[in-house]
Amino acid sequence: MSSIRTDLALEAKEIREEEGMKSIPGVETDVDAGARIKITRVQITEESAAKLLGKPIGNYITIEVPELRKNDIDLMEETSRTIAKELIRLTNLKDDSSILIVGLGNWNVTPDALGPKVTEKVLVTRHMTEYVPEQIDDSIRPVSALSPGVLGITGIETSEIILGVVNRIKPDLIIAIDALASRKMERVNSTIQISDTGINPGSGVGNNRKELNKDTLGIDVIAIGVPTVVDAATMANDTIDMMISGFLKEGKNNSAFVEMLNSFNNNERLSLINEVFTDDVKNLMVTPKEIDSIIDDISDVIADGLNISLHPGIEMDDTSRFIN
Amino acid sequence: MSSIRTDLALEAKEIREEEGMKSIPGVETDVDAGARIKITRVQITEESAAKLLGKPIGNYITIEVPELRKNDIDLMEETSRTIAKELIRLTNLKDDSSILIVGLGNWNVTPDALGPKVTEKVLVTRHMTEYVPEQIDDSIRPVSALSPGVLGITGIETSEIILGVVNRIKPDLIIAIDALASRKMERVNSTIQISDTGINPGSGVGNNRKELNKDTLGIDVIAIGVPTVVDAATMANDTIDMMISGFLKEGKNNSAFVEMLNSFNNNERLSLINEVFTDDVKNLMVTPKEIDSIIDDISDVIADGLNISLHPGIEMDDTSRFIN
Amino acid sequence: MSSIRTDLALEAKEIREEEGMKSIPGVETDVDAGARIKITRVQITEESAAKLLGKPIGNYITIEVPELRKNDIDLMEETSRTIAKELIRLTNLKDDSSILIVGLGNWNVTPDALGPKVTEKVLVTRHMTEYVPEQIDDSIRPVSALSPGVLGITGIETSEIILGVVNRIKPDLIIAIDALASRKMERVNSTIQISDTGINPGSGVGNNRKELNKDTLGIDVIAIGVPTVVDAATMANDTIDMMISGFLKEGKNNSAFVEMLNSFNNNERLSLINEVFTDDVKNLMVTPKEIDSIIDDISDVIADGLNISLHPGIEMDDTSRFIN
Amino acid sequence: MSSIRTDLALEAKEIREEEGMKSIPGVETDVDAGARIKITRVQITEESAAKLLGKPIGNYITIEVPELRKNDIDLMEETSRTIAKELIRLTNLKDDSSILIVGLGNWNVTPDALGPKVTEKVLVTRHMTEYVPEQIDDSIRPVSALSPGVLGITGIETSEIILGVVNRIKPDLIIAIDALASRKMERVNSTIQISDTGINPGSGVGNNRKELNKDTLGIDVIAIGVPTVVDAATMANDTIDMMISGFLKEGKNNSAFVEMLNSFNNNERLSLINEVFTDDVKNLMVTPKEIDSIIDDISDVIADGLNISLHPGIEMDDTSRFIN
Repeated sequence: MSSIRTDLALEAKEIREEEGMKSIPGVETDVDAGARIKITRVQITEESAAKLLGKPIGNYITIEVPELRKNDIDLMEETSRTIAKELIRLTNLKDDSSILIVGLGNWNVTPDALGPKVTEKVLVTRHMTEYVPEQIDDSIRPVSALSPGVLGITGIETSEIILGVVNRIKPDLIIAIDALASRKMERVNSTIQISDTGINPGSGVGNNRKELNKDTLGIDVIAIGVPTVVDAATMANDTIDMMISGFLKEGKNNSAFVEMLNSFNNNERLSLINEVFTDDVKNLMVTPKEIDSIIDDISDVIADGLNISLHPGIEMDDTSRFIN
Repeated sequence: MSSIRTDLALEAKEIREEEGMKSIPGVETDVDAGARIKITRVQITEESAAKLLGKPIGNYITIEVPELRKNDIDLMEETSRTIAKELIRLTNLKDDSSILIVGLGNWNVTPDALGPKVTEKVLVTRHMTEYVPEQIDDSIRPVSALSPGVLGITGIETSEIILGVVNRIKPDLIIAIDALASRKMERVNSTIQISDTGINPGSGVGNNRKELNKDTLGIDVIAIGVPTVVDAATMANDTIDMMISGFLKEGKNNSAFVEMLNSFNNNERLSLINEVFTDDVKNLMVTPKEIDSIIDDISDVIADGLNISLHPGIEMDDTSRFIN
Repeated sequence: MSSIRTDLALEAKEIREEEGMKSIPGVETDVDAGARIKITRVQITEESAAKLLGKPIGNYITIEVPELRKNDIDLMEETSRTIAKELIRLTNLKDDSSILIVGLGNWNVTPDALGPKVTEKVLVTRHMTEYVPEQIDDSIRPVSALSPGVLGITGIETSEIILGVVNRIKPDLIIAIDALASRKMERVNSTIQISDTGINPGSGVGNNRKELNKDTLGIDVIAIGVPTVVDAATMANDTIDMMISGFLKEGKNNSAFVEMLNSFNNNERLSLINEVFTDDVKNLMVTPKEIDSIIDDISDVIADGLNISLHPGIEMDDTSRFIN
Repeated sequence: MSSIRTDLALEAKEIREEEGMKSIPGVETDVDAGARIKITRVQITEESAAKLLGKPIGNYITIEVPELRKNDIDLMEETSRTIAKELIRLTNLKDDSSILIVGLGNWNVTPDALGPKVTEKVLVTRHMTEYVPEQIDDSIRPVSALSPGVLGITGIETSEIILGVVNRIKPDLIIAIDALASRKMERVNSTIQISDTGINPGSGVGNNRKELNKDTLGIDVIAIGVPTVVDAATMANDTIDMMISGFLKEGKNNSAFVEMLNSFNNNERLSLINEVFTDDVKNLMVTPKEIDSIIDDISDVIADGLNISLHPGIEMDDTSRFIN
């Protein structure tokens, strides 16, 4: 069985299905397919399924918006509202719950800057509810926002910074925003995953100091992730797929290719590619040319989704009114 | 006696001297005037003097470099070395002391972005000394760096973030970098103050949660500050001074102006100006037109000074080698 | 008679009025005062008036929006629509007229970056109407956009760059966007001047190579300007005014001040201040602390105004759809 | 014979060699291999060779610095000096020759922003030699600098803007800086090509309006290019190569792969990949994760090289003294 890692629960499930598993006990899936937005809710209910998918028990909501990259304002607003609706379903906020929004990632690397960009755009209110409560509405919850940077910039584990701040300000909920990697190019910058299991980067021993979840932080952690890159291996593998289909279409199904096609499944091939790749190549990333403006757009979408969901009484049109 | 506040101990002393005090008991001053760099070391040794100057007991070193704004590489390097020398005198670091550099201020407001810019440029090593000690030299001390943002951006008191992180990573020393306001236009972007008393923004009751010093953080706090703006009142006041001298020079010392000149001292006039200013005007700041590149240069100077002083064995020329 | 220069025709008129002129022959003024937006249309019809105001014969529309700095989306949209309406009145575009938008100023100096920011945000269509006319609507005019930089950045006179490009692409109209200086702090970032006389920086001999108008470029030039700074002298002068009113209010109308008050009018005093100011001080500018976000907002407002006015059939809500 | 395009003359030659051509008449090659920098000078002397390589008659100097990405200051300076030396060899500047530096590319797309970044950093002197000649040295040549943007930003063909400006300021030489694509991942961000044939993007009919060379501009055009991305097809192809070598090494040389290996050469395979690729995939680019800081470093290297070569009497250490 392969050990290919993916950040998306949806893809983890796909991998197992590609390997031949028809249904996985302890995994419930619910699909809500609209004209332009498709919502898939994967719930992992049993430890055996968690192990099989490499994801903790919990809820994983994937919002797929194939045209999200196209700078369509209406679709962007619809996506924000969808995010808000799913967030409200997933969290169980009281009127006065306080929320800390954490923007993970490196603000100097464009496709990794999604989290820090969202914290810049989100409506921050905690200081107002604390110092000038008379100036703001009852419908505003106390929200704070932090971009802790990455280890190479600060010299400090991200989780240490967050844990330190949580100990001081004691929020009721953390929402962490992060850029992910996908194993399919088509999902890049068009997919949003929301989960209630926090951030669980590695499953290796001793790695738990990097986790951001209820175990390490003592409070609920919602994670919102968007795949913004594919790695070089994924890209190479997808390309080979395209080549094979291309060749077959053109009738070039000579024995060599058919043999190759049959000899490896997708995940085995990806493992092989990873094996032969040098470190230099592994350091490469694949992005659309206009990644700067795409990250800008998607961080708008997520920030609006957060604003609507966290503050009852705030409407789509209001959000820009509150933000400097 | 006036209660005009200034961030520079040197200016606090000047104010009292302008008010007629010849010497202040409990204040020792030592001046080291080079061709292009003047160092003034003010030591406040008694509580009475601390009260009189509005500054805690401790050391305040002011490095004045009138030509610092002129983008002269040699002078910039000399200034970095001067900062390093004074920092080494002021701190008492062991070979393995760990240092947290804190860049205070708002990265979205150019003249306030000095601190965050320095943290971006400083050599961060804590993660290397911890995870890959074999890859780095003995002469490298563990340094981490953090820009906590400001209340309006995060919704969290800066001191809460720093206290939270200090509790987790337990550094031996904090060095906080901050942009200051000066009461003289000529000091803007050409003066560096280093003190061992930390950051003590207000002396009012209940305001101590904003202090960053040994009392609040439990460890030594060095503060490095550079005045990068004057406020509108200071500017107006300086202008009036210039007008008066100009008029006097031109023989226009009519009784009205002489009377005005005599009726107020500098600090009284500044108080009056502050009184008549509207909030809108108080929100104005005065900076040189090329503030963007000046802040870039000065943050280079301070980052180099920090790198040389914190890592024995690192030379001026090496610093850029270590920084990405 | 004073020779104080101002970029705003409205202020030039004010200066003469302060000097005692009740009405100026050859100047027609029409005011349109709404609840939150005040439009003043000054038309200079005679050469004598042009000389008196230091402005060429032509139309000068000033749109004053005192609350424009407050990030109010509705007011920003209303201002964009007002700009569009006045632009349409002032230009006489045919369905297929081509327009070159020129963003003047230095993109490295925040308050001078207004022009370049507008060119970044405006809907550029000339290449589409030329290469893929079938893909766009009839209601889209060919618009191109250029930020020529400033002499210190390029080593080339701005007007040379624009003239060179105009000779090649032969637009029917130029719209130049520029950051101005005001002589009143309250007008900063809240006033938009539209004129059909182009950019006429100096009236001195030999200076005409820097002019951008029908004489130098051979086509109509609309100028849109926003005061984004006041200079140090203006600020000092305004402060003195405030001090005097403050003193008078507090009953401190001692003879000295009244004498001073009477001895100079506003413009004389400004001249005196300029005389006594050093070059260092003249290089200072006065801006609100949050100038970065204000310039962002106003460039949005102007870009939207341009988009609506230049492309019949484009609505407010559409503009963001077209812009990447 | 394949028609695969590459921006590097060196690679064009490699392609023909891979296709079996041992030596190409009309192409002279001279290699200068240092410890860390390898210089290859390719001279195309005959039209037949120009046609075969898809490059005009002229000189193509390739400077390969495999470790350039590693932020080594000494190597960066050595590379700047190498660029300067080759530029001086290639141009034939008189003491008062005037030079226009053109930074091609889109400043909003990081790996395409190399040219604009160089123009920002280069020493611009034309306005000084013109307006204040007494303030500068005889050893300073008049240099101007322009970033014309790209068609999608301005709506104007880049070549139209440059031609317009050239017509006005009449420089003696243009040096155009551009980001290129390579067909080998290892060359990305470590290779600099200098040629005296200008920019010749396409060989198709009617495409000559985009050329920047002596024919279109009337003056000599030096082009400096650095590959900063590979496209998705190149990456996929390189990956397949790595996979094949990996398989062969592991003894997996089963008949299918050997057959595949033999059935296509490199260029045929690249054509096939391009055929099967969708437009979405073609829009992807492959870059190292830290592309932002790499582009910063390489633009420093090129700007320093230009400064040293264009101004006799300027030394490496001086360059930063002149630049704001």
